[in-house]
Amino acid sequence: MLFERIESEGLAHYSYLIGDTNEAIVIDPRRDGDIYLERAERAGFHIAHVLETHRNEDYVIGSVELAARTGAEIWHADSQWPYSYGQPVEDGQTWSVGGLRLQAIHAPGHTPGMMNYVLHDATGAPWVLFSGDTLFAGSVGRTDLLGTERAEEMAGLLYDTIHDALLPLGDGVIVCPAHGAGSVCGAAIVDRPWTTIGIERQANPALQVSSRSAFIARYAQALERPPYFTRMERLNVEGPPPISPLRVPTPLPPKAFAREAERALVLDTRMEVAFLASHVPGALSIWRGGLGRFAGWFLPYDRPILLVTDGEDPLPVVRVLARMGYDNVVGHLAGGMHAWHTAGLDSATLSGVTVPSLCTYLDEGNRPAILDVRSDAEVQEEGAIRDAQHLPITQVAQHLDAVPRQPLHIFCGSGSRSTIVASLLEREGWRNLTVVLGGTRGWTSVSCPIDLVQRA
Amino acid sequence: MLFERIESEGLAHYSYLIGDTNEAIVIDPRRDGDIYLERAERAGFHIAHVLETHRNEDYVIGSVELAARTGAEIWHADSQWPYSYGQPVEDGQTWSVGGLRLQAIHAPGHTPGMMNYVLHDATGAPWVLFSGDTLFAGSVGRTDLLGTERAEEMAGLLYDTIHDALLPLGDGVIVCPAHGAGSVCGAAIVDRPWTTIGIERQANPALQVSSRSAFIARYAQALERPPYFTRMERLNVEGPPPISPLRVPTPLPPKAFAREAERALVLDTRMEVAFLASHVPGALSIWRGGLGRFAGWFLPYDRPILLVTDGEDPLPVVRVLARMGYDNVVGHLAGGMHAWHTAGLDSATLSGVTVPSLCTYLDEGNRPAILDVRSDAEVQEEGAIRDAQHLPITQVAQHLDAVPRQPLHIFCGSGSRSTIVASLLEREGWRNLTVVLGGTRGWTSVSCPIDLVQRA
Amino acid sequence: MLFERIESEGLAHYSYLIGDTNEAIVIDPRRDGDIYLERAERAGFHIAHVLETHRNEDYVIGSVELAARTGAEIWHADSQWPYSYGQPVEDGQTWSVGGLRLQAIHAPGHTPGMMNYVLHDATGAPWVLFSGDTLFAGSVGRTDLLGTERAEEMAGLLYDTIHDALLPLGDGVIVCPAHGAGSVCGAAIVDRPWTTIGIERQANPALQVSSRSAFIARYAQALERPPYFTRMERLNVEGPPPISPLRVPTPLPPKAFAREAERALVLDTRMEVAFLASHVPGALSIWRGGLGRFAGWFLPYDRPILLVTDGEDPLPVVRVLARMGYDNVVGHLAGGMHAWHTAGLDSATLSGVTVPSLCTYLDEGNRPAILDVRSDAEVQEEGAIRDAQHLPITQVAQHLDAVPRQPLHIFCGSGSRSTIVASLLEREGWRNLTVVLGGTRGWTSVSCPIDLVQRA
Amino acid sequence: MLFERIESEGLAHYSYLIGDTNEAIVIDPRRDGDIYLERAERAGFHIAHVLETHRNEDYVIGSVELAARTGAEIWHADSQWPYSYGQPVEDGQTWSVGGLRLQAIHAPGHTPGMMNYVLHDATGAPWVLFSGDTLFAGSVGRTDLLGTERAEEMAGLLYDTIHDALLPLGDGVIVCPAHGAGSVCGAAIVDRPWTTIGIERQANPALQVSSRSAFIARYAQALERPPYFTRMERLNVEGPPPISPLRVPTPLPPKAFAREAERALVLDTRMEVAFLASHVPGALSIWRGGLGRFAGWFLPYDRPILLVTDGEDPLPVVRVLARMGYDNVVGHLAGGMHAWHTAGLDSATLSGVTVPSLCTYLDEGNRPAILDVRSDAEVQEEGAIRDAQHLPITQVAQHLDAVPRQPLHIFCGSGSRSTIVASLLEREGWRNLTVVLGGTRGWTSVSCPIDLVQRA
Repeated sequence: MLFERIESEGLAHYSYLIGDTNEAIVIDPRRDGDIYLERAERAGFHIAHVLETHRNEDYVIGSVELAARTGAEIWHADSQWPYSYGQPVEDGQTWSVGGLRLQAIHAPGHTPGMMNYVLHDATGAPWVLFSGDTLFAGSVGRTDLLGTERAEEMAGLLYDTIHDALLPLGDGVIVCPAHGAGSVCGAAIVDRPWTTIGIERQANPALQVSSRSAFIARYAQALERPPYFTRMERLNVEGPPPISPLRVPTPLPPKAFAREAERALVLDTRMEVAFLASHVPGALSIWRGGLGRFAGWFLPYDRPILLVTDGEDPLPVVRVLARMGYDNVVGHLAGGMHAWHTAGLDSATLSGVTVPSLCTYLDEGNRPAILDVRSDAEVQEEGAIRDAQHLPITQVAQHLDAVPRQPLHIFCGSGSRSTIVASLLEREGWRNLTVVLGGTRGWTSVSCPIDLVQRA
Repeated sequence: MLFERIESEGLAHYSYLIGDTNEAIVIDPRRDGDIYLERAERAGFHIAHVLETHRNEDYVIGSVELAARTGAEIWHADSQWPYSYGQPVEDGQTWSVGGLRLQAIHAPGHTPGMMNYVLHDATGAPWVLFSGDTLFAGSVGRTDLLGTERAEEMAGLLYDTIHDALLPLGDGVIVCPAHGAGSVCGAAIVDRPWTTIGIERQANPALQVSSRSAFIARYAQALERPPYFTRMERLNVEGPPPISPLRVPTPLPPKAFAREAERALVLDTRMEVAFLASHVPGALSIWRGGLGRFAGWFLPYDRPILLVTDGEDPLPVVRVLARMGYDNVVGHLAGGMHAWHTAGLDSATLSGVTVPSLCTYLDEGNRPAILDVRSDAEVQEEGAIRDAQHLPITQVAQHLDAVPRQPLHIFCGSGSRSTIVASLLEREGWRNLTVVLGGTRGWTSVSCPIDLVQRA
Repeated sequence: MLFERIESEGLAHYSYLIGDTNEAIVIDPRRDGDIYLERAERAGFHIAHVLETHRNEDYVIGSVELAARTGAEIWHADSQWPYSYGQPVEDGQTWSVGGLRLQAIHAPGHTPGMMNYVLHDATGAPWVLFSGDTLFAGSVGRTDLLGTERAEEMAGLLYDTIHDALLPLGDGVIVCPAHGAGSVCGAAIVDRPWTTIGIERQANPALQVSSRSAFIARYAQALERPPYFTRMERLNVEGPPPISPLRVPTPLPPKAFAREAERALVLDTRMEVAFLASHVPGALSIWRGGLGRFAGWFLPYDRPILLVTDGEDPLPVVRVLARMGYDNVVGHLAGGMHAWHTAGLDSATLSGVTVPSLCTYLDEGNRPAILDVRSDAEVQEEGAIRDAQHLPITQVAQHLDAVPRQPLHIFCGSGSRSTIVASLLEREGWRNLTVVLGGTRGWTSVSCPIDLVQRA
Repeated sequence: MLFERIESEGLAHYSYLIGDTNEAIVIDPRRDGDIYLERAERAGFHIAHVLETHRNEDYVIGSVELAARTGAEIWHADSQWPYSYGQPVEDGQTWSVGGLRLQAIHAPGHTPGMMNYVLHDATGAPWVLFSGDTLFAGSVGRTDLLGTERAEEMAGLLYDTIHDALLPLGDGVIVCPAHGAGSVCGAAIVDRPWTTIGIERQANPALQVSSRSAFIARYAQALERPPYFTRMERLNVEGPPPISPLRVPTPLPPKAFAREAERALVLDTRMEVAFLASHVPGALSIWRGGLGRFAGWFLPYDRPILLVTDGEDPLPVVRVLARMGYDNVVGHLAGGMHAWHTAGLDSATLSGVTVPSLCTYLDEGNRPAILDVRSDAEVQEEGAIRDAQHLPITQVAQHLDAVPRQPLHIFCGSGSRSTIVASLLEREGWRNLTVVLGGTRGWTSVSCPIDLVQRA
């Protein structure tokens, strides 16, 4: 039997490759699909079907290209939208995979036409639930994607789906959702890589809510919606262009890079201290590990993107961006910032301050203006920073006028997101920006006489 | 500096990736070009140019797809033909690759518009000769591709090219040809992976010939011309379709395979003893390592091809065939012959006999009819087989009427090619065929009282 | 979080790598442990502990070497035996892995000192049970390893362990056993790669048994015990010698191979049809995929082993054998059987017959003597073969006198095990042996007028 | 045929794997020898001999471990030293590798007992010269390793070896030395990856010298001698301990790392800007690509080493250091500097200035003290820096008293070596150090009105 979960890091996306007796099914494939082919091939399986759980909004689905390479049939959920490819799944529809049987369950809540799939073992008993964006480890799917005005309706549907269709499958059923911790598709997904209905029934806060109305009150909330969702939703109904073969970004020597940079966005994926110390003037900082969460907020689709990595292979970055529909990465800085400097070019710098240094500075009576870019949830959970301006990172670009035009110390949880924000503000004309290295996590690790964080 | 030779096994094709200071050139890329991208990328080089030495006839050139993925410019030789892509190279044209300089030399002989390329080092001295199909290790390019009627003319041009343009570069210059031992593009290329003008001047038989006329007499010979050359020549002028993403052949369970096999050609790439012992009725045998040399003689472009491998990953086979333009491999037998048998299906068998057993058999006075499928050159060099019918493997399909309709013992050098021929004849109705395992090489290793081989 | 199951194919052995916040634990590592290091390293985890569930009898455990390379502490169960390494686990002992907690549960039944480990999630609730050889998917651990005289006692303990210690953990708990389908450590483990207590409670036949005494009656059975178990049990208490660096078997040209073969055992791992068609005289056949199940029955520890593969890389075979303590693979046949034949050497052959051919042969009135080497369980489940001598493959070597000294048709499920037996009998002087290709599975796939199999 | 050059980057070391007809030879293997085994195995070759060209001083040779894993015989040169392993090579000794023949030539000059090896092709003609540290591309071996007092004697021997033994082999012979550009074993080796006697005869400055005495005058020069040479020389005669299995450094969370750092050396291999911006107090900077050239100058053998990488896999660094005999890398900072900061720990910083900024600063009339750490050769070739103190990087640690105790701007060619020196000086108490990012290469790329560099 073939039972593999393929994780796309960054996006915290899970897809699944299930097979028996030479036949395999892929559920919610990502766009760069070589991995499904290689694994199926190596194990002697033919990918016969591609099943989608819903119209995804946070990544480009790879169904069309995978089908073209294997001859698989595509089955899409959410058929209320005008799909240009595949066939719609019907509630209760079944597929055979060798001796196994998969059955679709209509599971509205996150989207109206969401489909979950139950895998039955050889005895016919329910064994695994592919729960898409309905039920996650420690969380449930967000209900606001059709607009806040429909969130209550969708939350009610979600409650019904979970209680009427999923929980009755039994505690022992393994739950395989479409996302793990770190996804933007559900609030507070926990890091529990494998889970079951029984575990979720006991440990998932959303399943502790006692009534439908209480559930609606709690889960009809509006979450942040990165701008790139709109493009993903369109692409995933239209069917995205093929990703293979991947166009390789051109390595550009420093002076050529500088010329191209005039009409492009420069994206620097190095870690925060390297970026702060020296970067191409005007570059936007998003560290490599943060691309899945932040690229969709800040990167354009209609302008070429140039990369600054640490002088190493840019292809993993290109691949992560392509999963979010960014096919506009055209070049990268050959030799990295080292080459930039040996070409005699000037670079920009931003300041960083460690937590102990900042403590000393405050202890000496200084009171710099502080911008806190943590999310609302973090502020609520960890406490606010005294006298700080709070503006979540995801709102900075849209609310620049809310940011004081003055020297700022920028706080987030660790210093990574602060660096993104510092790079944004620098592009908009701010000067004398200082990133707090270590952020609030660093602050709570030291015993500074200044109690900066007001506990919630 | 980047200086890599990429060998495509099977075809014994050499391509080259040369780079300096971020810029790289590829010479004669193969069709599946990921390797150039990966190596250039990892070393921080941008592939700026693709250079072809000539219109290749034995493999599909990868220039068009590589250019599409990198933005490189394509330069083709043999511009007397109506290329639909790239720009023609002019004699003496130069390219800079970082601090290096490449210069084209018109080198007619194998084709009329062949270009060789001389790489000069930083001091400007000639350093490496990319000799295409002009000069090989121990051999020279064949001169008969425009037809035997022009072979003498071409051989004369080849002599002039070598003596007037290549040898004067100096003994120390490294020679990097487009093929190594085993290629069908030159007779008797030797296995000398790196060579120089000096070594060739001393050791290459073609450079020992004392006069132009003697050279023409010796090298205006007609060599075998596999049927697929015609298609390669056309594709390489038109520009072949992209190979990426590779379409994966469908793993077919035995009964589905049997159904598909009715309208397809079944190609079995296992080693000879496995094939002889049991194969899908009607299957053609070409062992994996022999595909480069023999697929182009026996495989159709206009019929689907189904594979029988040893139950393992068929993709390497698919890739080798794609290099020869075979994009029609649609399926493979899932589980191999083991699955075929457990599905209760019948298989065909052919006989094999070891050399010691055959010796005993002959010694007992038996005199089976023998078919010798070695090449003319082998027969000349190693001697003929007494009382055997000699018909080179490459002529069998066209001259079936020359093969006696009777039980046959089939000899080649080792047993591999005999098995191809046995599979061919079996498809045409022959019965009681026996492959001599070990072939003439085996025969010369034993001391059998029967002296089967008549030394030349 | 790091949660990886590492499967050792062939042995159907599962080990686990669990980590949180830079600290990791490995449970039941295999001997070639690079994979744990690579995965931990890549994810930034330090392997701090190695936990053994019991003294394994079917493979060499890799604790000692893994600890030497990482500084990890080793914890062994079954401390009633005189371990020369590590520290004994106490019932109830706990380990912290970042924010997670693992707790030992004494779980006697398969061995007296078996330990299972419960992983609790961040909330403290039981989440995953590492059940060692106590509870498998669809099966339970065998109880006869201390001798049949103690099997009833052990079966009673196993019943108590399951009912008193494991089932109370709750249906939702994920069960991670030490073996999957195909292992020799439990009868009839099913192919359900991920399972839970709830699923096992409903679907595992051993958990349907209504009383302790009925359980004992059913599960105090004696299973087959491969001879290599004894050596594994000793090595795993003593601590095995390091496997790294792996000594590479010498590629031997045919004549050197033939010389070495005089004092060695020749093991041929090719598929059955290739072996039947031609093999080194005296070679033992075990196809590559069957090594985990059969090598321990037939291979010696005190004689050098020489390999015949299909001419390809023998290292994967060497690695599988090393997992079973076979460090005596000294050479392999360079170039495979093809080279053997071209060296003019003679090979042995055995006959194979497809099911349709055998059907015709029987239909013509022939009645060959049949040897059926399937297991007792298969015969019981699928039915016996009419007029056949039944002797399970694992008993053939010890009961040669029960095998008639005459021409035989050998049946197993598919033809693979029959080939092992044919090679064994051939070494012992039998002649005119015929393997039925496809075996009983093939037979039940055809409509032959001869009804060979008597349904149970 | 097998003909592979294996390059160990960093050390610019070339080893060779040569094989024919199943037998292979390795020349000058590196310590981590899996690559030889894998390539030989894949191609079906048995490594029968390991040949050393001389007692190496710049890396640990891998002969002993490779022999232990393959059964190969070891042949060492320089038998005037008391080798504890292998057999001494005699001048003129020959080895057969399949159909090829290798012959030793005594080639004194770099060491007294240096052996070069000539590979003859099938015709018996010299084909390839494995020239060890005798003849390099564009350079020759250094002659000062026995002490400057014997350098003239050795230079004379080197002249004789080249002129009497190597050049007569003929222009067409391919030269395969033991090092490429970047090695510390010869001055000014050029980046010409493949070369010949003919090319060297024309382009190698050492072969243009007209007389033996002029050669001695020019090449009896003393070059820098990294302190680690002494240990390498001893290990390579004694036979080094095995490297496999590699001990993996423990990932240490920040606070544990800080504790261990009290008794260890912290080595930070990140690029210069990241190091300058923030590093563990007291850390030594050597960027990853510079380890081969600089680790041997600054790292201790008798103290544990802790790594700070960019948060990624430290194993490649461990491997490069192991090649230089550093088996004392015990830990690395888990999570990199990002984790350091979120643990609330303080870090140190150094200043960097780009070339344009420095230009402006100078143009405003400032005259900072400058320390130039380029090599003597660079200063000679590129010109000195006006008013700068010149002290080559390799002399800084031994001549701290020559470095003014004051704020310094530190120059090298690019900023990498300056960062090493800045980290060294910071450890010794210097403050207000500024690294010039881009260095002299950056300076010569801009048009600054201040002409800082005085052309030679």
